[in-house]
Amino acid sequence: MAIKTRLTDFFGLEHPIVLAPMDPASGGELASAVSAAGALGMLGGGYANRTWFEEQSAKVSRPDVGCGFITWALANDPGLLELALQRHNKAIMLSFSDPAPYAPKVKQAGVPLICQVQTLEHAKRAIDVGADVVIAQGTEAGGHGLTARSTMPFVPAVADLVAQRASDVLVLAAGGIADGRGVAAALMLGADGALMGTRFWATQESVIHRNAKEKVVTATGDETIRTRVYDVVRKKPWPSEYTGRLMKNGFIDQWHGREDELRNLQEAELQRVETAWASGDYDTANVTVGEGIGLIHDIPTAGELVKRISAEASACLSRYAPAQQSIAA
Amino acid sequence: MAIKTRLTDFFGLEHPIVLAPMDPASGGELASAVSAAGALGMLGGGYANRTWFEEQSAKVSRPDVGCGFITWALANDPGLLELALQRHNKAIMLSFSDPAPYAPKVKQAGVPLICQVQTLEHAKRAIDVGADVVIAQGTEAGGHGLTARSTMPFVPAVADLVAQRASDVLVLAAGGIADGRGVAAALMLGADGALMGTRFWATQESVIHRNAKEKVVTATGDETIRTRVYDVVRKKPWPSEYTGRLMKNGFIDQWHGREDELRNLQEAELQRVETAWASGDYDTANVTVGEGIGLIHDIPTAGELVKRISAEASACLSRYAPAQQSIAA
Ligand SMILES: Cc1cc2nc3c(=O)[nH]c(=O)nc-3n(C[C@H](O)[C@H](O)[C@H](O)COP(=O)(O)O)c2cc1C
Ligand SMILES: Cc1cc2nc3c(=O)[nH]c(=O)nc-3n(C[C@H](O)[C@H](O)[C@H](O)COP(=O)(O)O)c2cc1C
Repeated sequence: MAIKTRLTDFFGLEHPIVLAPMDPASGGELASAVSAAGALGMLGGGYANRTWFEEQSAKVSRPDVGCGFITWALANDPGLLELALQRHNKAIMLSFSDPAPYAPKVKQAGVPLICQVQTLEHAKRAIDVGADVVIAQGTEAGGHGLTARSTMPFVPAVADLVAQRASDVLVLAAGGIADGRGVAAALMLGADGALMGTRFWATQESVIHRNAKEKVVTATGDETIRTRVYDVVRKKPWPSEYTGRLMKNGFIDQWHGREDELRNLQEAELQRVETAWASGDYDTANVTVGEGIGLIHDIPTAGELVKRISAEASACLSRYAPAQQSIAA
Repeated sequence: MAIKTRLTDFFGLEHPIVLAPMDPASGGELASAVSAAGALGMLGGGYANRTWFEEQSAKVSRPDVGCGFITWALANDPGLLELALQRHNKAIMLSFSDPAPYAPKVKQAGVPLICQVQTLEHAKRAIDVGADVVIAQGTEAGGHGLTARSTMPFVPAVADLVAQRASDVLVLAAGGIADGRGVAAALMLGADGALMGTRFWATQESVIHRNAKEKVVTATGDETIRTRVYDVVRKKPWPSEYTGRLMKNGFIDQWHGREDELRNLQEAELQRVETAWASGDYDTANVTVGEGIGLIHDIPTAGELVKRISAEASACLSRYAPAQQSIAA
């Protein structure tokens, strides 16, 4: 059974699920498959790399796909926002640092603006710049974020803020949601749907080496960590408060807590990481995923996955429904 | 409407809610009030301080109250476990470090054993020592814990583990649950109920200075931090991986990250903290609460609170129930 929420109404979806615009996993094929399945597919514009963008943009096969960027990185090539507004304008998502410089352009184009936030202060800012959707991201999320908040208490706090200040704004939960239980929980917390990254990372279509996906299938959620080591080695100028959540591996064991030394050996270590990335050696290359990996046991197609998660969520939502309870009682 | 779960069946409760055995907030009056309201009240045996235990044990007015201890601290006075087994034997809860030394005594007494865990490895251990209830505690929780896991992805992982290994074992969610939305979300994640600390801390009955409770009512969930500073100043020998989550204040600003210096000035600083504690100066004394403070706006009685949370949870659980959806559609 389809789950109707304010999110499904707003975007005309069948399922209250949004693909996280993961750099580089959320390529054109994955984003299209998610939209085809009745959820919202988002292209991973990430660090605003034009070569990647053009390559993956060409693989988007549908008009109902959106695009997300790492906000501070858009300064590298602001023209990509224009391209995204033309080509993948189901929604534009901005994450990490102040959305104000780019929000007006999105609003003027009449394209729905989604802002992902990590604190209540960020959420206020997102509302102020006109976000149509605010995503409350907890620290259990894969990829970049803060340690400040976890999904369980953060989502209802953002929902309350929105209810007070701008009740038409939609709220999504992000971080640690990897199956229908998580989607159902997000709805209970007051969200209108869930943004999911890690779970879609482990699909057939995601743009990640097979070896990396297989590592995740056998891991538990105890095996992730927040660290800066891959930002240091790749010289990504992240604002200092942000770290990335990844699966622990040999490279992190070696360098986490020794970032200053790593800076001195940056060129050689980057080469090592790039070689590992190409060869599929994920004890050295990064496996950028969140605590949700403990709930991942296979590598389905994105379409199968959307349907499975939605069916699970429906089953959860029925379980404690009043009618069931009185039958049980 | 009452919510029926495996937890309410097992303990004969009206509401799937358990009071966290908070040291020192969960005194006899609070624990009794929670049980009187149809949830499960737990006395905060905490650091196993006999004076506190006797004083608060005498205030327990009902037989259907349990008691919890910080496991490693029981070595200070193992006789308190015997007393708890005699007097407050609705359930015994063990948290933080290996429960194996004390679990057999609880099992032999035929008293339900509850173990609170922070990793999947801990959860396995709890099952192995015969826990009847495993509590999956996320890092957003108030008080001590780890940074390893957050409630949203951890609870379903523990539920899956239990389903595989010992399907009669019940699962509770803890960390960041402060209203009915959180309780409903916990049930969706596969838990049989919720353990709540921070929310009950801000009740009339909790054994905490009024000034501290009032600080929490106006705070947001962005204002907490995990730190060791109060363990250092109080010379509590916590296993090194554990930190406490508290509300940020002047004392934490001053010492967090400077724990070695604090060790050198420990006696003087402890005196300052104790004076502050007595006078209600919570810029210096500890306000031990979790991210859930962002959802707390009043200081009700525990009985009112249990009923309110349960009613909210019921409303949430009805919201996406199949019947409602088809009416809405
Ligand atoms: C591999 C990976 C890459 C990510 N890259 C981005 C990104 O480029 N831009 C962005 O807004 N969020 C990015 N995120 C974070 C997601 O937007 C989202 O917050 C997160 O995936 C949600 O938590 P989950 O991974 O537990 O589902 C990334 C996440 C992952 C796992
Ligand atoms: C003030 C305070 C004291 C606590 N003391 C204990 C304790 O002595 N023993 C224990 O098992 N847990 C203790 N906890 C942790 C709780 O058992 C529980 O994990 C936590 O309160 C759940 O998260 P929440 O605070 O967000 O509800 C304490 C929590 C708080 C807030």
